[in-house]
Amino acid sequence: MSRIDDTLDPALRSWVDSANRADTDFPIQNLPFGRFRRAGGDWRLGVAIGDQILDLQAAGLVESADMNRLMGQPAQVRRALRAALSEGLRAGSTQAATWRDALVSQAAVEMGLPCTIGDYTDFYTSIHHATTVGRQFRPDNPLLPNYKWVPIGYHGRASSIGVSGQHFHRPWGQTRPATAPEGSAPNFGPSRRLDYELELGIFMGQPNALGEPVSVEQAEEHVFGLSLFNDWSARDIQGWEYQPLGPFLAKNFASTVSPWIVTLDALAPFRLPFRRPEGDPAPLPYLDSSANRDQGAIDITLEVWLQTAAMREAGHAGDRLSTSNYADAYWTVAQLVAHHTVNGCNLQSGDLLGSGTLSGPKPEQGGSLLELSQGGKQALTLSNGEQRSFLEDGDTVILKAYCERAGARRIGFGECRGTVLPARDLGR
Amino acid sequence: MSRIDDTLDPALRSWVDSANRADTDFPIQNLPFGRFRRAGGDWRLGVAIGDQILDLQAAGLVESADMNRLMGQPAQVRRALRAALSEGLRAGSTQAATWRDALVSQAAVEMGLPCTIGDYTDFYTSIHHATTVGRQFRPDNPLLPNYKWVPIGYHGRASSIGVSGQHFHRPWGQTRPATAPEGSAPNFGPSRRLDYELELGIFMGQPNALGEPVSVEQAEEHVFGLSLFNDWSARDIQGWEYQPLGPFLAKNFASTVSPWIVTLDALAPFRLPFRRPEGDPAPLPYLDSSANRDQGAIDITLEVWLQTAAMREAGHAGDRLSTSNYADAYWTVAQLVAHHTVNGCNLQSGDLLGSGTLSGPKPEQGGSLLELSQGGKQALTLSNGEQRSFLEDGDTVILKAYCERAGARRIGFGECRGTVLPARDLGR
Repeated sequence: MSRIDDTLDPALRSWVDSANRADTDFPIQNLPFGRFRRAGGDWRLGVAIGDQILDLQAAGLVESADMNRLMGQPAQVRRALRAALSEGLRAGSTQAATWRDALVSQAAVEMGLPCTIGDYTDFYTSIHHATTVGRQFRPDNPLLPNYKWVPIGYHGRASSIGVSGQHFHRPWGQTRPATAPEGSAPNFGPSRRLDYELELGIFMGQPNALGEPVSVEQAEEHVFGLSLFNDWSARDIQGWEYQPLGPFLAKNFASTVSPWIVTLDALAPFRLPFRRPEGDPAPLPYLDSSANRDQGAIDITLEVWLQTAAMREAGHAGDRLSTSNYADAYWTVAQLVAHHTVNGCNLQSGDLLGSGTLSGPKPEQGGSLLELSQGGKQALTLSNGEQRSFLEDGDTVILKAYCERAGARRIGFGECRGTVLPARDLGR
Repeated sequence: MSRIDDTLDPALRSWVDSANRADTDFPIQNLPFGRFRRAGGDWRLGVAIGDQILDLQAAGLVESADMNRLMGQPAQVRRALRAALSEGLRAGSTQAATWRDALVSQAAVEMGLPCTIGDYTDFYTSIHHATTVGRQFRPDNPLLPNYKWVPIGYHGRASSIGVSGQHFHRPWGQTRPATAPEGSAPNFGPSRRLDYELELGIFMGQPNALGEPVSVEQAEEHVFGLSLFNDWSARDIQGWEYQPLGPFLAKNFASTVSPWIVTLDALAPFRLPFRRPEGDPAPLPYLDSSANRDQGAIDITLEVWLQTAAMREAGHAGDRLSTSNYADAYWTVAQLVAHHTVNGCNLQSGDLLGSGTLSGPKPEQGGSLLELSQGGKQALTLSNGEQRSFLEDGDTVILKAYCERAGARRIGFGECRGTVLPARDLGR
């Protein structure tokens, strides 16, 4: 499942100096993939190294800028590319002479969506999020009976997914009338309960054919890597529309992904046993394997930061609203893939699975304002005195993630950043 | 909104003889678009005319086989192409001399998916379907309070959509334990309540940018055309998984679309006023327009046919299970587009909107077996004595649709055909 090889040796150093700084997200042990372009240039594939990008085409490592094609290769092809990157970027490598010209500063380019996202599925893997949100709707019965058996998921909208830096207008929509006789007209206007969701994105690699499930044992071989993901949500629109077929306009106006895909290979040192709480049922056999029990979880620390317009004007980088960890998820990456395909559904290269909001067990670890403000009842006071129950126009939300442990090099995910613009004037 | 021009003149005849037969689905007034290939050949764009296809590239009308690009053109470009096709295919046209070599028999080619489907959304526009199905879950409260205000929809899976002729394996999945103490393990096995759904597919044409809603007045200018659509459903998987985020594995193992997209231009003679039942609320302003009231509905007769394996062996074409009409839908095409985009969601060329199951007001007009068999409680007896509550292995479901009225030429949609294969042996 996850293997430690010499690309993960914490002693490795790169001839790209910035990759050797202790605080970089992108040391030589990481090597995440992304798509970038210089001003006026075409999209290119690249790998982040320190504060630079290695242009994979210029380095002679790929032939085209088609990330989906690269993602669709068997895992061993991807690993061979990773090994070549690690060798060539190592301090002392003779590649430095030629590859140095294939470097471009991250500050000098625009990052794009890492690939074409055919289909996007969002899961609901945090039992803490499901319980807290469920309690707001069903105080006596927060967790539905299927939760501990079914990795609950639903299809999302791929077309409105943007890359970090995305700005989007506050969405309009119908919301439930607050006080009105049964059957009276809903409200229509800009959402007043706009929220973020702290998620990881799982990008699919090698595809499976329609009708051919991927076993839980094989699942991770079909995963290209992970990114940060913010599934912006309009809670008031959601509350009125979601019965009986699930969220729709409450979610599909925008979602934001970070530009760098961190491979599972890079995350191998941070795997943890996957354990369910005492007394919870074991997963059904198609969702269970010894490798999944031994190291199905991943120790990734996640953070949400909020920078309001006032903070931005004051040169303030923002407040950290919460911290949580992916190891607290109730379902693993392998289980999501096995479940998604058990009915024969085909996952294609570049497809995106959202983890669902990753909230931790403590109230302050909520991965959304809905949780942190207790459904809007308890506003958060920010460091500059501002208050927030939900997002205001001009707010920028920044997601961050990293892996750290003794004996391994720190691996970071970069940032996933998005900003709320005022609602459009629809002239109605 | 819909305009009658001389391409719709019922007196028009073609130099392609088979297009002049009274029973053809594809007279010169129709001119639907599709994608085909000859044995060993590349995909090409074509227009159905009688039992032939006009190869649009060979006829010099398009440069590439990229249907999405054609779909993305402004409506006036599409209409100019339609006018050129109508002129050139008319009896007496001098184009016959050159275009005759651009014809290929439909029997000689393979039809493909008409375009690349980026995102697929399924709506729930039949109030009769929503009420009947709702009654099975909530006898006292079948229709939820949002139904008459919100065109309910959700995102579906694009990757598993296939074209007419699709064969798929009966899906495996978790289902609710029938009789068991609270919290006991669900069943896991092949679905036993496999069903079809009779729908129309709405293919999007000219896209809207993210953040820029399409008004109900402009909505139809963004629609390329309609097809038949079968959204296969595993009712037992759906019943266990769908709370709280909607259907997922119950639907995404396969969906089948017919190969020909009938343009709204061809359907102009069959428009009807859109009327709500007495006492029902008027749509909110963003879902209302005088054109939508005057001619928002479309008079399309829909049929479901079932051919069992035994019928196929006996050379029997199948039984007609039900008939309904798209004019009975509670929301129009324009309303679906306006609603889908009101929050800024971007619809791209080739995106597919499903109408939802199109059931009529009478019990025998149910667009699914779930309805016709009353949730499986009342099996249907077929003409050869077989019985069906849900689909059996080897069953072929055939959807058909056509428009007919005095003073207009009949327009057909062709067929949407799909066959259930036995569940795979998953070795568990």
